[in-house]
Amino acid sequence: MPFTPDAALDLLFTEDLIPQHVKNELPSELHIRPLSSTDYGRGHLSVLSVLTQTPDVGAAAWESQFHTLRSTPATYYILVIVSRDTDQIVGTGGVFIERKFLRGLGRVGHIEDIAVSHGMQGKKLGLRIIQALTHISENAGCYKTILNCSDSNIPFYEKCGFEKREKEMAKYAAGRAHTPRL
Amino acid sequence: MPFTPDAALDLLFTEDLIPQHVKNELPSELHIRPLSSTDYGRGHLSVLSVLTQTPDVGAAAWESQFHTLRSTPATYYILVIVSRDTDQIVGTGGVFIERKFLRGLGRVGHIEDIAVSHGMQGKKLGLRIIQALTHISENAGCYKTILNCSDSNIPFYEKCGFEKREKEMAKYAAGRAHTPRL
Repeated sequence: MPFTPDAALDLLFTEDLIPQHVKNELPSELHIRPLSSTDYGRGHLSVLSVLTQTPDVGAAAWESQFHTLRSTPATYYILVIVSRDTDQIVGTGGVFIERKFLRGLGRVGHIEDIAVSHGMQGKKLGLRIIQALTHISENAGCYKTILNCSDSNIPFYEKCGFEKREKEMAKYAAGRAHTPRL
Repeated sequence: MPFTPDAALDLLFTEDLIPQHVKNELPSELHIRPLSSTDYGRGHLSVLSVLTQTPDVGAAAWESQFHTLRSTPATYYILVIVSRDTDQIVGTGGVFIERKFLRGLGRVGHIEDIAVSHGMQGKKLGLRIIQALTHISENAGCYKTILNCSDSNIPFYEKCGFEKREKEMAKYAAGRAHTPRL
């Protein structure tokens, strides 16, 4: 598949929220941009499947979710990294912006679902995604940006400027398996 | 102030999402309901101030935030517990529903900002708020409900059916103090 330029895509949010310094650090054969309405066909779910169960919901349901997220004002910011050679997605991650009453109607950015395809790991793509999402979060006025990670990933996130805070506790809905995140 | 019945209030979401079994467990002088558009005047920010910095933003800004949250479709569910004697808020907590692509367009409920006023602690109000929010989250189709807590609160949340998962990492925006949550 030939590479599709941003101008030919219907994006989740405006491209200029992604900081130039992150774009500059990417290998030249890769491109970082907002999720687009046609990224189902570029392997978005396949990349997410490195994290947890990600059944193929089909293009129509995927697109419907895309439009639901986009219609939620200034809340969901999901990025993808695309190979210019194949037009396929090799990495993704998102941040959503929570609005609070405390901290002077403060906002908190929650980074979620950072995934890099198996063949592209070790190229610091996860780091670039985190840097871009943290920038977007702070630019949106968040007083803090948080993420949850396994013990083995703590040193990586500390290098990204994050510090340990609290414990994440989870309760699974009845009848749904406890599937650890990898 | 005389107690204001739900029917006289403009609520954040429909009252019948709060499970009856939680209402039944509350002391009779207390009432649990969705946040209302006039709860600025019932001490909502004062209760939140037990958690962290909660400056008084004024009634107009508070109400504007209320309407922003309500206009975000099926995302923010904030509860309050009100004293029938004083019509003042004595406890609050919220869950917001995140929509994902993985897990078959799965949803995760994030419980945030559980606060009980100092004079009302020890009455299991936090537990009742958690039970109601978890019910709302699961009823909204979330495959899991998560929260972040300090080590000292882990036994409490384990009793609520939650299990330890990951570490929360946080990055504070430049120029904003690192204020630990109490």
